Amino acid sequence: MPLLFQYRGAVSMAYYEERQGREEPRAPDDQAVSFPPEGRKRVVIEEVRPAVECGSHPAKAIAGDPRTVEARVFADGHDRVRAVLCYRRAPAPYERASPGGHPKDRAFPERARREHQSGNAAESTATAALSQEWEERPMKPLGNDYYRGTFIPDQVGRYEVKVRGWIDRFATWQSGLGKKVDAGVDVTVELLTGGNLAAEAAEAAEAAATARDGEAAEDADRLAELSRIMLDTSLPEPARVDVARSTELERLVEAYLPRRFVSEYAPAVPVWADPPRARFSAWYEMFPRSTATDRLRHGTFHDTIELLPYVRRIGFDVLYLPPIHPIGRTKRKGRNNALIPAPDDPGSPWAIGSDEGGHTSVHPELGTIEDFDALVAAAREEGLEIALDIAFQCSPDHPWVKEHPEWFRARPDGTIQFAENPPKKYEDIYPLDFETEHWRELWSALRDVFLFWMDHGVRTFRVDNPHTKAFSFWEWCVGELRARDPEVVLLAEAFTRPAVKYRLGKLGFSQGYTYFAWRPTAHEMRAYVEELTTPPVVDIFRPNFWPNTPDILHEILQNGGRGAFIARLVLAATLSSNYGIYGPAFELMEHAPREPGSEEYLNSEKYEIRFWDRDAPYSLSRLIATVNAARNAHPALQRTDNVRFHNVDNDALLCYSKVSNDLQDVVLVVVTFDYRNEQMGWVEFSPAAVGLPHALPFVVRDLLTGEDFEWGDYWNFVKLDPYDRPAHILHLRRD
Amino acid sequence: MPLLFQYRGAVSMAYYEERQGREEPRAPDDQAVSFPPEGRKRVVIEEVRPAVECGSHPAKAIAGDPRTVEARVFADGHDRVRAVLCYRRAPAPYERASPGGHPKDRAFPERARREHQSGNAAESTATAALSQEWEERPMKPLGNDYYRGTFIPDQVGRYEVKVRGWIDRFATWQSGLGKKVDAGVDVTVELLTGGNLAAEAAEAAEAAATARDGEAAEDADRLAELSRIMLDTSLPEPARVDVARSTELERLVEAYLPRRFVSEYAPAVPVWADPPRARFSAWYEMFPRSTATDRLRHGTFHDTIELLPYVRRIGFDVLYLPPIHPIGRTKRKGRNNALIPAPDDPGSPWAIGSDEGGHTSVHPELGTIEDFDALVAAAREEGLEIALDIAFQCSPDHPWVKEHPEWFRARPDGTIQFAENPPKKYEDIYPLDFETEHWRELWSALRDVFLFWMDHGVRTFRVDNPHTKAFSFWEWCVGELRARDPEVVLLAEAFTRPAVKYRLGKLGFSQGYTYFAWRPTAHEMRAYVEELTTPPVVDIFRPNFWPNTPDILHEILQNGGRGAFIARLVLAATLSSNYGIYGPAFELMEHAPREPGSEEYLNSEKYEIRFWDRDAPYSLSRLIATVNAARNAHPALQRTDNVRFHNVDNDALLCYSKVSNDLQDVVLVVVTFDYRNEQMGWVEFSPAAVGLPHALPFVVRDLLTGEDFEWGDYWNFVKLDPYDRPAHILHLRRD
Repeated sequence: MPLLFQYRGAVSMAYYEERQGREEPRAPDDQAVSFPPEGRKRVVIEEVRPAVECGSHPAKAIAGDPRTVEARVFADGHDRVRAVLCYRRAPAPYERASPGGHPKDRAFPERARREHQSGNAAESTATAALSQEWEERPMKPLGNDYYRGTFIPDQVGRYEVKVRGWIDRFATWQSGLGKKVDAGVDVTVELLTGGNLAAEAAEAAEAAATARDGEAAEDADRLAELSRIMLDTSLPEPARVDVARSTELERLVEAYLPRRFVSEYAPAVPVWADPPRARFSAWYEMFPRSTATDRLRHGTFHDTIELLPYVRRIGFDVLYLPPIHPIGRTKRKGRNNALIPAPDDPGSPWAIGSDEGGHTSVHPELGTIEDFDALVAAAREEGLEIALDIAFQCSPDHPWVKEHPEWFRARPDGTIQFAENPPKKYEDIYPLDFETEHWRELWSALRDVFLFWMDHGVRTFRVDNPHTKAFSFWEWCVGELRARDPEVVLLAEAFTRPAVKYRLGKLGFSQGYTYFAWRPTAHEMRAYVEELTTPPVVDIFRPNFWPNTPDILHEILQNGGRGAFIARLVLAATLSSNYGIYGPAFELMEHAPREPGSEEYLNSEKYEIRFWDRDAPYSLSRLIATVNAARNAHPALQRTDNVRFHNVDNDALLCYSKVSNDLQDVVLVVVTFDYRNEQMGWVEFSPAAVGLPHALPFVVRDLLTGEDFEWGDYWNFVKLDPYDRPAHILHLRRD
Repeated sequence: MPLLFQYRGAVSMAYYEERQGREEPRAPDDQAVSFPPEGRKRVVIEEVRPAVECGSHPAKAIAGDPRTVEARVFADGHDRVRAVLCYRRAPAPYERASPGGHPKDRAFPERARREHQSGNAAESTATAALSQEWEERPMKPLGNDYYRGTFIPDQVGRYEVKVRGWIDRFATWQSGLGKKVDAGVDVTVELLTGGNLAAEAAEAAEAAATARDGEAAEDADRLAELSRIMLDTSLPEPARVDVARSTELERLVEAYLPRRFVSEYAPAVPVWADPPRARFSAWYEMFPRSTATDRLRHGTFHDTIELLPYVRRIGFDVLYLPPIHPIGRTKRKGRNNALIPAPDDPGSPWAIGSDEGGHTSVHPELGTIEDFDALVAAAREEGLEIALDIAFQCSPDHPWVKEHPEWFRARPDGTIQFAENPPKKYEDIYPLDFETEHWRELWSALRDVFLFWMDHGVRTFRVDNPHTKAFSFWEWCVGELRARDPEVVLLAEAFTRPAVKYRLGKLGFSQGYTYFAWRPTAHEMRAYVEELTTPPVVDIFRPNFWPNTPDILHEILQNGGRGAFIARLVLAATLSSNYGIYGPAFELMEHAPREPGSEEYLNSEKYEIRFWDRDAPYSLSRLIATVNAARNAHPALQRTDNVRFHNVDNDALLCYSKVSNDLQDVVLVVVTFDYRNEQMGWVEFSPAAVGLPHALPFVVRDLLTGEDFEWGDYWNFVKLDPYDRPAHILHLRRD
């Protein structure tokens, strides 16, 4: 009986649930046949979104934001169907009262696994104990048997979603009656049927009333009255029909009529609600060693503290620091990645570890751990998050190399395997061996690196090349970190193939770097953003757009001039609600490559200390501040999934709009992709296209210049010029 | 730890499997942390096709045909990955040794369910006992991390599929070595690594050899020798490199090198292999009561037997009979669906049941059950399958109405609810109430109707309006029928919304009626066939194309004339390997509607007995025979999923080709959709486009006329004329 195998299907899950402690039902002819315990559940539920890989991974949501749920819900025959979504807070699969946890907590995940694998986590007392009751939200038909509803996870953490469906007896009856009346067919019997339905609802209301619900008591009386009218054949039929078709009857009956044979899609679909800062954030990357106010010194955490007001003033809320750990000396790289360093070359911060310590130590020249704590505290004062760079790799001088040689791969000649991408060799770096026999110890040590910095007040991490570490490790580690603090936010630096990038999103990375920098044309940019903002990707991956990083100086910025910097900044900051820049190099428009054709910076800060003149007259800091101010002032720009593209009759221009959830805030952006020539064209935009009332003319204000434009038609002329005005950020005025 | 919840993911399933009877691993720091038992499985497996609704329903396959399996398989880092599919015969979830079965069999499904829900069916001894060992087939990369392989289910029944993946240590090493050698990098250590890999493979071969495998013994020696060469630093490096890069080494090592840390996608994905006649069949629908050779008599089963040679001669292999049961008298419909019948009107065969019996009785005027048995036997003689019409509905005179009033819905006035689609009423039909308290008895009775006719030699059923009966019933019933005879074939007559049609396919219906008749243009037809022949639909639904049925006389046939009949026949018969016609009405080109705008036949056989002059000079029987002969002679036409459309520069024409699995048989079809005017155009077809060697000129033979055409280019001119030649069926000559 295939049914038995369908424990994910609605009917079959119901089958399983009702089997609890039951006798296998018997066929009347006494021939043993496995019937489902309730064969009268006629509604089928399929294609529940957002079930990621059949619910194997939690889909992404944001605490406090509406989360959409969709499903295909239908039944046999012509009866009307009703669908609701049910949701509740669920315990994280591995929840601990405190780091380490106590036995009960430790036992939990085992229990949860068993219960989940038995397909019954939802009903398990263990889970129930740790979670709330199911809340219900209506789902509305979208046509073609699709239904949609939304719920709002109120806290950060794990949620569960189910979809339920049943035959709507009343709606089925009322619509049938209506058609018959309109067709002049006799409805004597139909009125009796309706009267009985109302009576049944009245009884249910009565029952609710006894549970001390005043309103229900009134409703019960009213329902009984309406029922009597419909059943009273001595009354004139038209009057009874009016009652039968009344919205009052509809409202009351739908409120109380018991649901019969409810189908449920189970097991519950997991959803993880991240904190709002996972949705909306502006990152500023800065090397703390280059923060000295004169070029003679190695910058310190104290110098960094001095710069916090600047970073905040230009509108960023995350300050991301490349690795702050002791830097190895063996095979250290010199300036511009030279194989032979000069004696005073500081080396790359990503060559982590020396006899001064490893991943839980700070580079002495930056200061002490207390200085770091002071930086974190000062940043919090300024309303800034400190994001650390977690790069799980070691210099040959890293303490782990001596203490745990078993965590590295040995070569047949007894040496340790260095990093390589044949034929390239990176002898200053030893990768960790995730196939080591001692992987449990390794995993624990790596997790403890995160926990160490979390204990020092860091809740945001940029993870270096996570796709070169085992997925199973990340899966486990993310759970461990969330058990410590569900507010932790992880940005994955994985510039790799789509399946790999998205896998990291499924495993719990809150955000990921993207191909943004390599989308040079309006057409490519639109196609890419559309991929990122539609299912399945939108449910598992949150983009973070970076026009530049210390590793990425795209040809556009090398040759595009100021216009290119401004245009790419506006695109990153308004297309994606999460974006970042590699700071000083960006606002000072650093654009010389190490050599022609390279995306590496000349005199890259990765290999030397730089001095940045933030007061330079040509700095983009004022513009950046303006763009960030627009982001902070406009809810429309604080989401990514609400982007909507509009027609432009010029391929060099891209036009898109964003609207806030409450429709009160509308921002329209037009950007040029031509950094040499003036481009003009007609853009099509009507308020109605984004769900607002038709209105002509309407006024848009350019948030970059403060200018107002009155648009008298739905097609409007724009002219963009890389030297003067590479972009519009237009706010639709409502006053 | 999200891992725990991922029992469908590769890593996590592995996790589960290895936990069997194990202690929860402990972290070294003695802090209890749930680790997966094997954290070194680095390969991830996703998007396994054909998993239908996460494996809740078996995907469709055909015994003896290759079944494609695809998956996304990838790992962290840059290592090479290998993937294989594993398959095996599995017991049907509800398998019975004999009807009724014995306790052990009856117990089985319960066991299977538990084991499956514990995610471990594959390993369960219970299952293993009833199934074979896993067979393995290679999967080849398609790019973008997708892999594809095929297997051939050798019998009718249920199969299970898994996908396994692991890091290919040897290929990773060999490609790295190659790059280094080409770049002139020193490879001393790499050669040692390779030597060790070869040695490891040699050991494995040795072990295999001890298991008395002569070839393995040779291979072991050769591997040891190659290993020695690579490890012998006294030999010249070039020679050792040659060995290292040799395909011989590659072949030998890949054959024996032990796989480490193998990931597996589980639980197994179910696949149901139908008999080949579910893939390829030509149906002929005929009312047995209209088979008398003179117009004065009610036709009988014996008259039907007389017509079998004709049906066979024109090339059909399934003879489908509308219901053959006693017909009700109460509210019987007259000719042309008149509400008041004439005394001698025979009524509709779908108004099933009278005091002469119900669904397991035959209409006396057709003959006795013995006569029916004779018909089945004679049909088998002719190589014809008899298909019965299963219509689960009752006339008011059906014995069940008296014996089981509880199976019908009572109205408040005590009468039984008749069928209706408000405001329309069908008072000659009582629908069964699938919400009856006594649904188990009802289900059993309905199943027994199938079993009764199966006991009389029928293995093919056309099910009338299955979408108006509960899906849970069909799910159960199909399992019951397959337990009796897995060769049973069910055709679903569900003209309804896509989700509902496809659901029936998932529940096990072998074939389904389609919207073919309502695709009047070449563009619509192409789009529809492409939907049917690509995932997900192609994995769950097998179309059966009907140009006409007793319920469907499309406007095309009403007004299109002979050209329309021929064109629609060719489309149905060559686009879909399963097709059928409502016989005599089609070959005699019956085309008068009951009234303008209706798709009902005038003087429909549904309500009266008709006499058909099959010898009429204008009969299409000869053409039909030719088309069916082409189908039977050409394997290319015996599948549906191999259709491939080709460009034509005229929207009134449709051009497509089909190629057999072995590429030996190629058929190209061109059909006109204009039934009034001659249409001409250029069609683009090159043998290379269907995987054959480029060849010009090539010769195509029209299987309808026998003409040969030499095509000297890849664009060729065709001219179709509804009156003379509405279609080409061209066979690519290989001689």
